[in-house]
Amino acid sequence: MTDINTVAKQFTDFYYTTFDTNRADLQGLYRPNSMLTWEGNQILGASDIAEKLTSLPFDKVQHKVTTLDAQPSDPTLSNMIVSVTGLLLVDDNQHPLQFSQVFQLVPEGGSFYVFNDIFRLNYGA
Amino acid sequence: MTDINTVAKQFTDFYYTTFDTNRADLQGLYRPNSMLTWEGNQILGASDIAEKLTSLPFDKVQHKVTTLDAQPSDPTLSNMIVSVTGLLLVDDNQHPLQFSQVFQLVPEGGSFYVFNDIFRLNYGA
Repeated sequence: MTDINTVAKQFTDFYYTTFDTNRADLQGLYRPNSMLTWEGNQILGASDIAEKLTSLPFDKVQHKVTTLDAQPSDPTLSNMIVSVTGLLLVDDNQHPLQFSQVFQLVPEGGSFYVFNDIFRLNYGA
Repeated sequence: MTDINTVAKQFTDFYYTTFDTNRADLQGLYRPNSMLTWEGNQILGASDIAEKLTSLPFDKVQHKVTTLDAQPSDPTLSNMIVSVTGLLLVDDNQHPLQFSQVFQLVPEGGSFYVFNDIFRLNYGA
């Protein structure tokens, strides 16, 4: 088995750096059949997903990953589920928000695209 | 498409009720190739997973689901990813712990088994 933890780390480093610097570039990670559930809202396809992500109402955003776990998600061990928990610092708010995000990554041409993406904020216990 | 939100709700109701009342019974939800990552520890197979779950050091435990999201996780729309966030009340501790848990469910004989299971506690921001 490939070291999926390394792949998961590389993917999330790239994903959150891109999210925090130029969200529009995330579109390249999704395909027409990709799914995003953002705070309960279901969005289908790279184009609509990119539109959702770029229209989120924050100027400055920074993700800090707290935990990162990965598992192969199909019998051939080619796809993987990546589960992330962490903190989200939005604009100049001093209080970080906790987030939980799950991806399923599917291999394509030596890299991966995002087939599933589920994002939730937890506003504290 | 089946209403996967209904299935996800039925599954998590059953899973957490069983977890909170008789953890040993969860073994029936896993198969020899099922994977559990519990707080970073990787466990393979129904038998070892059940042993892990039953050996967790709490007597009384109660899960309260805060958010529940589901997506089909393969092109044939038969499998599903279920993402849960919620609160865990352990023994007589008054301070609930936040948890994040992801399942991938695979259909089998009119029901589903758990192929992937990733669990994380967040000890507050």
